[in-house]
Amino acid sequence: MVLSEVNQPPAEGDAATSKKAAKKAAKAAEKQQKKAEHKVSAPESGILEIDISEGKYGNIKMIQSTGEHRDRVYTDVKDLGVHLDRKFVWVRARLQTSRAKGKQCFAVLRQNSSTIQLIVSVNEELYISKQMVKFTGNIPKESIVDVRAVVVATASPVQACSLGEVELSAREVWLVSPARAQLPLLVEDAARPETDDPEGLKIRVNQDTRLDNRVLDLRTPANQAIFRIEAGVCRLFRDHLTRRGFVEIHTPKIISAASEGGANVFTVSYFKSSAYLAQSPQLYKQMAIAADFDKVFTVGAVFRAEDSNTHRHLTEFVGLDLEMSFKQHYHEVLDTIGQTLTDIFRGLQEEFENEIATVAQQYPVAPFKFLEPPLRLEFPRAIQMLKEAGVTVGEEDDLSTPDEKLLGRLVKAKYETDFFILDKYPLAVRPFYTMPDPNNPKASNSYDMFMRGEEILSGAQRIHDPDFLTERAKHHGIDISKIAAYIESFRLGCPPHAGGGIGMERVVMLFLGLDNIRKTSMFPRDPKRVTP
Amino acid sequence: MVLSEVNQPPAEGDAATSKKAAKKAAKAAEKQQKKAEHKVSAPESGILEIDISEGKYGNIKMIQSTGEHRDRVYTDVKDLGVHLDRKFVWVRARLQTSRAKGKQCFAVLRQNSSTIQLIVSVNEELYISKQMVKFTGNIPKESIVDVRAVVVATASPVQACSLGEVELSAREVWLVSPARAQLPLLVEDAARPETDDPEGLKIRVNQDTRLDNRVLDLRTPANQAIFRIEAGVCRLFRDHLTRRGFVEIHTPKIISAASEGGANVFTVSYFKSSAYLAQSPQLYKQMAIAADFDKVFTVGAVFRAEDSNTHRHLTEFVGLDLEMSFKQHYHEVLDTIGQTLTDIFRGLQEEFENEIATVAQQYPVAPFKFLEPPLRLEFPRAIQMLKEAGVTVGEEDDLSTPDEKLLGRLVKAKYETDFFILDKYPLAVRPFYTMPDPNNPKASNSYDMFMRGEEILSGAQRIHDPDFLTERAKHHGIDISKIAAYIESFRLGCPPHAGGGIGMERVVMLFLGLDNIRKTSMFPRDPKRVTP
Repeated sequence: MVLSEVNQPPAEGDAATSKKAAKKAAKAAEKQQKKAEHKVSAPESGILEIDISEGKYGNIKMIQSTGEHRDRVYTDVKDLGVHLDRKFVWVRARLQTSRAKGKQCFAVLRQNSSTIQLIVSVNEELYISKQMVKFTGNIPKESIVDVRAVVVATASPVQACSLGEVELSAREVWLVSPARAQLPLLVEDAARPETDDPEGLKIRVNQDTRLDNRVLDLRTPANQAIFRIEAGVCRLFRDHLTRRGFVEIHTPKIISAASEGGANVFTVSYFKSSAYLAQSPQLYKQMAIAADFDKVFTVGAVFRAEDSNTHRHLTEFVGLDLEMSFKQHYHEVLDTIGQTLTDIFRGLQEEFENEIATVAQQYPVAPFKFLEPPLRLEFPRAIQMLKEAGVTVGEEDDLSTPDEKLLGRLVKAKYETDFFILDKYPLAVRPFYTMPDPNNPKASNSYDMFMRGEEILSGAQRIHDPDFLTERAKHHGIDISKIAAYIESFRLGCPPHAGGGIGMERVVMLFLGLDNIRKTSMFPRDPKRVTP
Repeated sequence: MVLSEVNQPPAEGDAATSKKAAKKAAKAAEKQQKKAEHKVSAPESGILEIDISEGKYGNIKMIQSTGEHRDRVYTDVKDLGVHLDRKFVWVRARLQTSRAKGKQCFAVLRQNSSTIQLIVSVNEELYISKQMVKFTGNIPKESIVDVRAVVVATASPVQACSLGEVELSAREVWLVSPARAQLPLLVEDAARPETDDPEGLKIRVNQDTRLDNRVLDLRTPANQAIFRIEAGVCRLFRDHLTRRGFVEIHTPKIISAASEGGANVFTVSYFKSSAYLAQSPQLYKQMAIAADFDKVFTVGAVFRAEDSNTHRHLTEFVGLDLEMSFKQHYHEVLDTIGQTLTDIFRGLQEEFENEIATVAQQYPVAPFKFLEPPLRLEFPRAIQMLKEAGVTVGEEDDLSTPDEKLLGRLVKAKYETDFFILDKYPLAVRPFYTMPDPNNPKASNSYDMFMRGEEILSGAQRIHDPDFLTERAKHHGIDISKIAAYIESFRLGCPPHAGGGIGMERVVMLFLGLDNIRKTSMFPRDPKRVTP
């Protein structure tokens, strides 16, 4: 760690280090200081001692939009670099750590995922007092500070910071928003790589502590990256479909009847009556198709009142749903969905290279592999592959979660892809509205899609013929009176159509190879958690 | 209405009108016919009469993805035109109307907002029988048909259709999906211009009939346009903010405590406990700011358990919410929001010119006017304008809905804008977390935005200082223990920030000058309606 030259002439146009200007600033700041609320103990000073740094550090008054300092230009930490060598900058960032030792204070400033070293050194010429150094050393971790500093190229890179080529030599240090002194977790600990424990310290922040203190946990570089990637997934999904003529729709979350029979729905008290939370936008997507919107997608909350406490279930998640009319064959839709996903994967790898690398620093995992066009297998082929691997699955049975995981590994070994489509599920394991296969009475025109051996999408051609839909519902033992409105919506003329629903959090989890869906839901909801 | 030449040689490569091919096709179709389910009565035929059109019309079997006809190329109705004169096309569309009269049947085909005339004429040379004409005339309105036809340029434009320069001369007519014979409303009636009633017929489809039969109602050209424009609003909102470095987030709808005191929230039974539906994503947006995401937006369902049955209230609507940290003044945020809205307005006018015109055909209204940058007024100025117009509003009172409407008219008259920002609301009428104005104890750093005199956004600088927030909550008589978690989230260091929430349905309603928010919610929810 090298402190480079700090006592050099300021950049042109910045006169703040001249004695006259400094005195003026000190006077103005003194006035401001008196008004300010002191949240961090003011530096101790001997009764007769004059603090030459007065007006150059301290607590600022709560920013209330007075108009003061509106012309001050701030530089983002990520934009600092050797091109700014010897220039003055204002930076607003978090003080990740600070440690005063004698006449110097070494601190790390963090903004999003970028960190840089800040040094405050006692220097009479520059009006930097030991009180100012001590003040900086006492600022609680995670507080937000405004720092005026000279950018200084380092002789050798600072290893601990993401920006190692430069550091900041402080001229002013102002506390904008203090964090409390005792934090429930340290961002540094929460950010530790899962593999990095050379001293066997076993410093791990457990998941509930993270989620209970999500605001702190979200500040880790990995989390900053994960949720930017998640935003990317949604954007790529929508952009891809919009380009293909899909129309975005919004479907109601409050519904009058449970969409699929009534199990696993949350009940809402609705004025003097009650209603339910939608488990899926499916009925509404289908109505939009029957209403001539042809190709629709919707991104929104989906609710499942399942008491499943697993690594991949949430009670509320974000569904990326789409539905599309087709002319002759549901593979027109299947191909569109498959391409949508490979477009998302490619888009992420192209646009979020840095974020993916940042996540991999904390959670090392093999990069996601996929084929274009994606691999499509038929169900009997999957059964056969599993059989060859020693697992027997009945031809009319669904796959168990372990079967799916194994199949994912077998497919990866054989085809080198982490993504594939499994088509032609047995009719017996799919909902009543699934179109049967015209050529095989035991099969259906339905499909799941998998990433790293876990299901991320389920979909099918839906029955658009009301009489046949009634027949199938009866076959499933469903009370026709309860789905009368659903069936009725197909008596107004409806084109053949198919669609599917993608779990957003699962796509992000599995693309990044993370082990728990709570890592990809900003404020996850499960049977035991509805806070924060 | 002119039927142009139909008995001309087919386009190159299409041999279907040659006698040999026709016989072959008839034979194949006969076979198919026998398998098909007959949903529309087969045409009557004399015992000894041979139907020369056999295999060229009828009900097709439910499309089940057999692979048949996968190579058939369909042309969209909107893409038909004189450039295709004398060419054969396949079209899949709705039969909006059909009327057989003697040896001819005149029909209108509709696809989305485009309509074209279809003519079926008895013609022995072309193997078009009177049975085929009659069959077409008997197809229920709104059914979906596959038509093979010759595109024919019309001598004079067909007035009743959006595509008047060409019509279709049928060679085959197949019923893909029948609508039932008695429809609860006619799309033609639902699409009538509000002003168009020259014969004083007063044919109006009332709102509840429309909403009860939303699938049919949504097929009107105006509704096809409205929901495409709505998708545009969301896309423009997100694209504009993404370009400015905002990150999309998803906030939970199920929350453990009512965000603003507990009034007007829906209760959800949550396993063995209960929870609430979020009235706003505000707390979560603010947590994302405290978690270093700097600038965030979210698009999602917002729930209000208000028993308001007005033209502008829904119990569930789509919120376009954003929150942004700023350096010194909340106007940094205010300006961003204002520009986001003008970007949306401009984007709509540039990209949705046709859709806007289509809506205006049914609901005539003056085009939306706005200024760039948008007009910003301070609250006292609004009070003064109202006073000059004879309305007295106390300087610490909120504006009533009629006051807002009047103010909108006054602003429009004076500044020629349908959009403006009203800044500096009285502190007394805003929520406890609103930052007071530093210069005027009765004012606050808060704002509403208006379109055509109705509020579409409410926002403010939020108090980011936990102690001051506590003080303000106490001042409002709020039980501090119930908002402890909210206050606590600001003890981890939080930058100054401001934001706002836009009601998507209101923006679309007011941009288009519509009179009811149920026109811009695809499946609206109000205290009396949770279906369909």
